[in-house]
Amino acid sequence: MRAEILCIGTELIIGQTVNSNATWLSKKLAAGGIDVMRHVAVGDNMGRISDALQLAWDRCDLIVVTGGLGPTDDDLTHAAIAAHFGLPMVEDPEALRSVAEALQRWNRPMNDVSRKMARIPEGSVALVNPAGSAAGIWLERAGHIIVTMPGVPREMEAMWQQCIEPKLHARADSAIVSHLLKFVGIPEQDAAGALKHLLDQANPSVAPYVGNGEVYLRVTAKAPDTATAEALMVPVIDEILATIGKHYFGRDGDTLESLVIEGLTGRRETLAVAESVTGGWLAQRLTAVPGASQVFLLGAVTYTSEMKSRLLGVDPALIDAHGAVSDPVARAMAAGVRATSGATWGIGITGLAGPLGDDRGTPVGRVYIALSGPGVDRCDERDFRTLGRDPIRWMATQVALRRLQQTLAGADPG
Amino acid sequence: MRAEILCIGTELIIGQTVNSNATWLSKKLAAGGIDVMRHVAVGDNMGRISDALQLAWDRCDLIVVTGGLGPTDDDLTHAAIAAHFGLPMVEDPEALRSVAEALQRWNRPMNDVSRKMARIPEGSVALVNPAGSAAGIWLERAGHIIVTMPGVPREMEAMWQQCIEPKLHARADSAIVSHLLKFVGIPEQDAAGALKHLLDQANPSVAPYVGNGEVYLRVTAKAPDTATAEALMVPVIDEILATIGKHYFGRDGDTLESLVIEGLTGRRETLAVAESVTGGWLAQRLTAVPGASQVFLLGAVTYTSEMKSRLLGVDPALIDAHGAVSDPVARAMAAGVRATSGATWGIGITGLAGPLGDDRGTPVGRVYIALSGPGVDRCDERDFRTLGRDPIRWMATQVALRRLQQTLAGADPG
Repeated sequence: MRAEILCIGTELIIGQTVNSNATWLSKKLAAGGIDVMRHVAVGDNMGRISDALQLAWDRCDLIVVTGGLGPTDDDLTHAAIAAHFGLPMVEDPEALRSVAEALQRWNRPMNDVSRKMARIPEGSVALVNPAGSAAGIWLERAGHIIVTMPGVPREMEAMWQQCIEPKLHARADSAIVSHLLKFVGIPEQDAAGALKHLLDQANPSVAPYVGNGEVYLRVTAKAPDTATAEALMVPVIDEILATIGKHYFGRDGDTLESLVIEGLTGRRETLAVAESVTGGWLAQRLTAVPGASQVFLLGAVTYTSEMKSRLLGVDPALIDAHGAVSDPVARAMAAGVRATSGATWGIGITGLAGPLGDDRGTPVGRVYIALSGPGVDRCDERDFRTLGRDPIRWMATQVALRRLQQTLAGADPG
Repeated sequence: MRAEILCIGTELIIGQTVNSNATWLSKKLAAGGIDVMRHVAVGDNMGRISDALQLAWDRCDLIVVTGGLGPTDDDLTHAAIAAHFGLPMVEDPEALRSVAEALQRWNRPMNDVSRKMARIPEGSVALVNPAGSAAGIWLERAGHIIVTMPGVPREMEAMWQQCIEPKLHARADSAIVSHLLKFVGIPEQDAAGALKHLLDQANPSVAPYVGNGEVYLRVTAKAPDTATAEALMVPVIDEILATIGKHYFGRDGDTLESLVIEGLTGRRETLAVAESVTGGWLAQRLTAVPGASQVFLLGAVTYTSEMKSRLLGVDPALIDAHGAVSDPVARAMAAGVRATSGATWGIGITGLAGPLGDDRGTPVGRVYIALSGPGVDRCDERDFRTLGRDPIRWMATQVALRRLQQTLAGADPG
């Protein structure tokens, strides 16, 4: 089965909204063994929706549509489908139920504007919205399937999972399985160069990507069933890890922060972080992991020298001598937040993200990341001068997480 | 001039990468008076790239292509353009310079793999990559313009701004100007309902969007020049603000956090925040604003009761009596972080984001957000039980920022 994803909404076309729905759906379709051939996005315009439907119809078996199901006049998706295939629009009892139940949950009255969402092309099956009001549809015609879902990601995802995925799974004839191997500290070109022969092969295929200071290799196999596809991948993954395993940190849903939280949990150890330049981003990343509250004791965002001294016990003379952005101050912050909190591990980050420099001539992009722990007192210096403010801050959190993740993985958990 | 954005890369089609390039380019094109008609994304496949080029050629004057310019064998964009239009591929001196200069910056040698990036379709003008190695092209044929840029957002953005935008601006015959009015605390349907007559009109047009707990109205006008377009919008914006201005907080680049930092800076006041459930996200949002270091004194992420007491002076008896997730504890955190830091304002957030509840039966999604300041001691209780872990955390930061932004805007700056 070949699919095309058609996203409808002027907000996409004028750059107001990132089309994350297409990305999310692509993942789901691939996991279900359905090849996605194209993403198309058009504005709220009958003619262009109709043209896009025709092209998708000619090229694919499954047309997955999002957006344009709301109550306002620029929500045209169902009207465009009806017009394109010459179907009348009818008020559907299931679609009306979708609207009525949502309004009841929200304590809002039914009115003509909302009631418009109950009108769908005749012959289609209404899909009740589990997380909102607008109904979607499942429409089969001449060997093609057209499904529509709301554009709001939360509603789209719920409708996909509860209404559409089960129907599609029942028809699938093969499984595509893929794993994402994650690396840090190696340029994409070096990874691709070392594995060139693997990148050229077809099943399993290996494709490199970059994102957020990390390099990913997606290994994908297609087979009649999931177990066979998984088995196909084993020797390829083994070879990749034998070649560039030094830079490997995790796979699929693993993130540096989830591995750190897991590592700490497994060792029954705790962590506290003191941040200056990263402004709470490191704490935010760590506490975004469910279960972090068991191991994360304290985050201190100490922008000023006074706070570094008062909360973390950093000696003011140290700051005077070396500057707030320096190796000794990062180490003192790590040791200080560890002492203040009683945590097993302390991280201290200080740096300069710009746009302005400091009065010591420290270059924008200079960051010091210190780790303090049992028998550990180290500091990494990095120079991210080619990056902007946010990437500098991000990369500083990357260095901190990678250092702790490696330390936790390398040491004997006892 | 009508444009289509064609993004090439299997990583898009399999859901590995969100197509943020299309969004970014749409904004830039709209600002330059160029109507974007469609986004299309296809994988690294000669046939599908060629089909997409043909369709875009038939429908538009300007084809903006991203991705597929790299050195690996699956980077096919220039080869596909050459094949589609029957042009030979030639090594171009400017394109070679783009590659060579980047390699020099990175201290890496030239090799055949990298040199491939210097080969472009004959008759096109090479665009030197300001932020990477792969060159783009500017190709004019039969009244159409085709431009290509790398898929890496940072490189794409630099090439657009330095190489392509100036050339396009020189040809523009009209300006599209748009403003985004931002609201918080009003459902999209209520905003749309109150302004229905405005949503129906064409120039200026008014379109509603939602995102991250905020509602936006984009007002867009098209005119021969920017000043005329701006003037067209004034009465429409006035009417919108007269109708739902109570929920308005800013426009265009304004964010709640940027307005808070601006407000504090203007009043020469300072801020400290104590976070539990939001885990540093509030501090992160605030410190992401350039200049935050002048007014942001301290962020304390105190997950444990002990840290709340030790760092913020929250009375353990208060936590025992009311629980860590309670109105009195939020107020004590706000007052405590204010006292500890000496800041003008203190914010305290405590809540439950799940997945697990606490042992007092507090529902997941319950959040308390307290503000302490000169003559101010208040606490907002919110119930985000319908949301997931991250949206609960996000919405808590929204409430905190909105409360402080309103307080700063409403009070006399003296």
